[in-house]
Amino acid sequence: MFNEVYDVIVVGAGHAGSEAAAAAANMGSKTLLITMNLQNIAQMSCNPAMGGIAKGQIVREIDALGGYSGIVSDTSAIQFKMLNKSKGPAMWSPRVQSDRMRFAEDWRLMLEKTPNLDLYQEMVSGLLIEKDSVVGVKTSLGVEVRSKSVVLTNGTFLNGLIHIGEKSFGGGRAGEKQATGITEQLVDLGFDSGRMKTGTPPRVDGRSLDFSKMIEQPGDENPDKFSYLDITKALTKQRSCHMTYTSEVVHDLLREGFDRSPMFNGRIKSLGPRYCPSIEDKINRFADKDRHQLFVEPEGWSTVEVYVNGFSTSLPEDVQFKALRSVVGFENVKFFRPGYAIEYDYFPPTQLKHTLETKLINGLYFAGQINGTTGYEEAASQGLMAGINASLRVQEREAFTLKRDEAYIGVLIDDLITKGTEEPYRMFTSRAEYRTLLRQDNADFRLTPKSYELGLASEKRMRRMEGKQVKADGFVSFFKQTSVKPEEANPVLEAKGSAPVKQSDKMFKIYSRPNITIEDVRKFNAVEEYILEHELDDEVIKQAEIQVKYSGYIAKEKNNADKLSRLEYVKIPENFDYSKIKSMSFEAREKLKKIQPTTVSQASRISGVSPNDISVLLVYMGR
Amino acid sequence: MFNEVYDVIVVGAGHAGSEAAAAAANMGSKTLLITMNLQNIAQMSCNPAMGGIAKGQIVREIDALGGYSGIVSDTSAIQFKMLNKSKGPAMWSPRVQSDRMRFAEDWRLMLEKTPNLDLYQEMVSGLLIEKDSVVGVKTSLGVEVRSKSVVLTNGTFLNGLIHIGEKSFGGGRAGEKQATGITEQLVDLGFDSGRMKTGTPPRVDGRSLDFSKMIEQPGDENPDKFSYLDITKALTKQRSCHMTYTSEVVHDLLREGFDRSPMFNGRIKSLGPRYCPSIEDKINRFADKDRHQLFVEPEGWSTVEVYVNGFSTSLPEDVQFKALRSVVGFENVKFFRPGYAIEYDYFPPTQLKHTLETKLINGLYFAGQINGTTGYEEAASQGLMAGINASLRVQEREAFTLKRDEAYIGVLIDDLITKGTEEPYRMFTSRAEYRTLLRQDNADFRLTPKSYELGLASEKRMRRMEGKQVKADGFVSFFKQTSVKPEEANPVLEAKGSAPVKQSDKMFKIYSRPNITIEDVRKFNAVEEYILEHELDDEVIKQAEIQVKYSGYIAKEKNNADKLSRLEYVKIPENFDYSKIKSMSFEAREKLKKIQPTTVSQASRISGVSPNDISVLLVYMGR
Ligand SMILES: Cc1cc2nc3c(=O)[nH]c(=O)nc-3n(C[C@H](O)[C@H](O)[C@H](O)COP(=O)(O)OP(=O)(O)OC[C@H]3O[C@@H](n4cnc5c(N)ncnc54)[C@H](O)[C@@H]3O)c2cc1C
Ligand SMILES: Cc1cc2nc3c(=O)[nH]c(=O)nc-3n(C[C@H](O)[C@H](O)[C@H](O)COP(=O)(O)OP(=O)(O)OC[C@H]3O[C@@H](n4cnc5c(N)ncnc54)[C@H](O)[C@@H]3O)c2cc1C
Repeated sequence: MFNEVYDVIVVGAGHAGSEAAAAAANMGSKTLLITMNLQNIAQMSCNPAMGGIAKGQIVREIDALGGYSGIVSDTSAIQFKMLNKSKGPAMWSPRVQSDRMRFAEDWRLMLEKTPNLDLYQEMVSGLLIEKDSVVGVKTSLGVEVRSKSVVLTNGTFLNGLIHIGEKSFGGGRAGEKQATGITEQLVDLGFDSGRMKTGTPPRVDGRSLDFSKMIEQPGDENPDKFSYLDITKALTKQRSCHMTYTSEVVHDLLREGFDRSPMFNGRIKSLGPRYCPSIEDKINRFADKDRHQLFVEPEGWSTVEVYVNGFSTSLPEDVQFKALRSVVGFENVKFFRPGYAIEYDYFPPTQLKHTLETKLINGLYFAGQINGTTGYEEAASQGLMAGINASLRVQEREAFTLKRDEAYIGVLIDDLITKGTEEPYRMFTSRAEYRTLLRQDNADFRLTPKSYELGLASEKRMRRMEGKQVKADGFVSFFKQTSVKPEEANPVLEAKGSAPVKQSDKMFKIYSRPNITIEDVRKFNAVEEYILEHELDDEVIKQAEIQVKYSGYIAKEKNNADKLSRLEYVKIPENFDYSKIKSMSFEAREKLKKIQPTTVSQASRISGVSPNDISVLLVYMGR
Repeated sequence: MFNEVYDVIVVGAGHAGSEAAAAAANMGSKTLLITMNLQNIAQMSCNPAMGGIAKGQIVREIDALGGYSGIVSDTSAIQFKMLNKSKGPAMWSPRVQSDRMRFAEDWRLMLEKTPNLDLYQEMVSGLLIEKDSVVGVKTSLGVEVRSKSVVLTNGTFLNGLIHIGEKSFGGGRAGEKQATGITEQLVDLGFDSGRMKTGTPPRVDGRSLDFSKMIEQPGDENPDKFSYLDITKALTKQRSCHMTYTSEVVHDLLREGFDRSPMFNGRIKSLGPRYCPSIEDKINRFADKDRHQLFVEPEGWSTVEVYVNGFSTSLPEDVQFKALRSVVGFENVKFFRPGYAIEYDYFPPTQLKHTLETKLINGLYFAGQINGTTGYEEAASQGLMAGINASLRVQEREAFTLKRDEAYIGVLIDDLITKGTEEPYRMFTSRAEYRTLLRQDNADFRLTPKSYELGLASEKRMRRMEGKQVKADGFVSFFKQTSVKPEEANPVLEAKGSAPVKQSDKMFKIYSRPNITIEDVRKFNAVEEYILEHELDDEVIKQAEIQVKYSGYIAKEKNNADKLSRLEYVKIPENFDYSKIKSMSFEAREKLKKIQPTTVSQASRISGVSPNDISVLLVYMGR
């Protein structure tokens, strides 16, 4: 029934698939998004929240590149918080609580409005392969749809197996079917596959909780937002979360169920996300901790459903229930549904190129949880990159990749394809070597020009970014060029206990002092005048502040990155024969053969490849 | 994990289950609603619309009784139409197009706000039975929940089997799992079960249709609404539907797939709804018709998804597609998902009492599609009645039933339990003997006092109804008591070509003339003054008009109903031994033994029981 040949077919409309489809369509590719249930587009499987540490930066990057996750996170937000505000701006991380239903609905409506994008509800059961290339998909009804490329974003659905206590049954998510057929075919084609697991906490009835016994966690007083575009607005009204704690009693009650736990009795064999552990994991691994935090998060503006963040579990539901009833504020808790764990297939991502295309099959891309990652943001960003690259390939244009000093997305993909991952991979700021460069406030400067060049970021987005950049740069130059006299400077400095100046000095130098803030320098007439005259808004002022106050760090990281990027330009020819380099360690040769890095820089990041091996390689390549 | 014993457990949150749960909780019963997916509460499985001929009356009755369907239909409506406006008011039937997502969400939020009502997500796999009584349910995770009564509302989910062309697979609805275990247990307990089927048309992408080639079907100019309460408002903005036709070409294309049709090649054996036939059924049964109407209905305010009403089909999806592409306006149609048919288990409803309690198991109620009905409205009304009666039983109060002259709901339930049904039962006005009494405009007069007495309809609802009644009755009396002089009457009469009067006459008589409308009588000063003085609104004026203009019919039907209701009061003792009445026909004795009617009137409606058999019965009972 599909007579046309699509440029790009995206399988699965989770976070990865939705971004992939939007990106491909917006780049002008005839795109088809096939998913099992059109009513569950961009469903949040687990917590109703977007962003957070390192993840918030990714959402900003997706937005800067022209993806939709930032916009939808804004329109569906019920609370905004800038995390790590007490630390340097490289650590600031935006996070929202989301209205789960709004999030999914807004995503669906955004996709419906996207030209070039068709939607279809069905389960994909296999790929159409000719020679070494993918040429379409086959659905469980036997429908064949032809295409020039396919992006697989199956999330936790491939042979998904749900566990609660001693029960387990097939499913891709609570109440939804698992997907079968795809793994088996890929393995036949020569792909390696593995199993991972993840878990989710119970959902409870907010009417049964005593919030007065918990600690309120309101949103920011002056909430910011994700999208750099002005089509979304910051929240004017917010819903609070609450915090409470487990206790020894709770832990003891949980332990009573350990012999019936699929985690501990061996029924679940695969690895779960180390940094998102289940509550049974936490009390097991940190036996000395007598309590753990629980965040009690509303699921939306109007619903009474509540998400118990921190209580992810696959213990039998009677154990979950009894233990949760012993938590302060939860004495009368009623469950909407118990927590559970899910095991699913993934494909070790070392089988991918930097573009997220598989090495084995041309035109076939993997994105999201299928690559062994965890988290909506990680998934969405991969989807975006796969959608862009699938489009570029069809259009016979050059591939688009991001380097480690350009974006967290670059770090993510490089880590995945270079190092692989044996446990669910999530992003942390510590994974980035250049995190002073990769800030949430400058993702637009970093990425919008690239995306605009690709034809993805809109004209409007580009102009807004340029406007902000010109103004911020201008303001920084102003500080560099403008001097302030001791009469004007010293009262301000003295008020802050900062050493007075003897003679006129550049404002830049004064402003750079650690405890001098924008409020202080605004006391200088020239500054306030400049702001008024140039109509600088908060975003620009903040941007300039960061550039002034962190100029040292920023310069240093840029320098380091530049040095390394020289190695980045040393390309390794395709199908390079490592077995010839006898002076290289055996392990390094094996790893390099398997990963097939495209540059010496990438080679250097592979675990098991030493600096010495790299020197040998460079020599061998005649460098 | 559920320590308490619930008064009522409702299984399934479709239209029946949602009403049942709301009613039971609002009557003060501790109620638990368990459903497979809390995100699909009150999902519209098929067309996005509520009401219609006879069905609209049912929704008004549900509302008058204090159910939620009317309110939610109002809040989620995108278009309102009073059908049959050209016929007498007994035939007027309100109908709305609904925003599918809003409908489900509004229902969920209404339920969340209902005190005494707990929600739980899980599949129920069996009942807990002790002796002849139900004492709770068991879930697929093995959780047992105890209760004093259980209402089963499983809809199309029991062993649901989805068919498209030559493919079939388990499912309760597209993309959702079927439910297993319950049928098997009930059959073991001695219940009869059967199979039925129903079907649904493809959903398509509105962006791919050419609406300019179709006939626009706007909503009413002055839209009304369902709920008698003033908490909902009539629409001020509406979305249009469109109409187009199939053609010989379309029919030929469809016929090409008949050998692969599960309907015609024998794979589907069960009966479908005769009055909601699939398109293949229509062209097969009405081979002489060269076209059939299709209504093209938007699925919501913002979505581009469109429902192709009239094109229900289980033909292979390539056949569906090719044929639909030949329909005017559908030349470039793109599918979101194909149509399909579903087969499911039902329980012949002759196994139920008037309260919808099963005859076999005490405290166990069935409501909705599980009883062999079809349609949201039919399901919802049964749910309401089952919820009420389950509550009354727990509270040891007298059962609540509605007679055939009191409500369509009374007709529905009496038909089901007395006559049974071998094909999906839907309501028609022709099924009601007293349809001039059972109007959509007076459901509140008929039912709100009863519901108020039960403790279900709110004080507010009762007072509003009384206010309307007093005003309408007063207005009717005014017409009866007030005379109009020839000087004032005749110009109005002559303008309408109605015979002039010679002397003063009662306004009632003049207003009763067929072509004299409210606009005409409002030309009499006294009428307009009365309206102003008593602040009569449109609803009251309309009500009085119907009572005046149809007083003859109404009186006649009341009289007939009263006569018959005498038989209604002749109760037949429980476990009455029909085998002793040798002079009764064998067939009648067998039917009566099986159905166990509770009154002679009910006995008289059983097919196979003749008036003669009834006379014999009355004699035998000493009447
Ligand atoms: C129980 C559970 C707990 C989780 N806990 C956490 C956590 O604690 N922390 C965290 O960061 N992340 C957690 N996650 C992970 C998070 O949900 C995912 O990282 C994210 O949703 C992945 O996005 P995705 O787009 O890759 O896949 P998904 O969001 O899973 O979306 C996959 C989509 O593809 C569709 N699909 C799959 N197969 C097919 C097919 N064959 N044909 C058609 N459509 C198909 C599905 O219907 C679905 O729409 C959890 C997930 C689950 C299910
Ligand atoms: C494909 C299709 C086509 C249809 N076509 C028409 C039509 O043309 N005209 C028409 O009038 N009507 C049609 N209908 C019927 C209409 O949808 C139903 O009449 C109506 O939805 C019945 O309401 P219900 O409450 O009885 O059941 P449903 O609306 O089916 O709801 C049943 C609910 O129970 C839940 N459930 C079931 N089993 C369990 C369990 N064991 N444990 C927990 N939860 C459970 C389900 O998840 C669901 O929420 C169609 C239905 C389908 C599926």
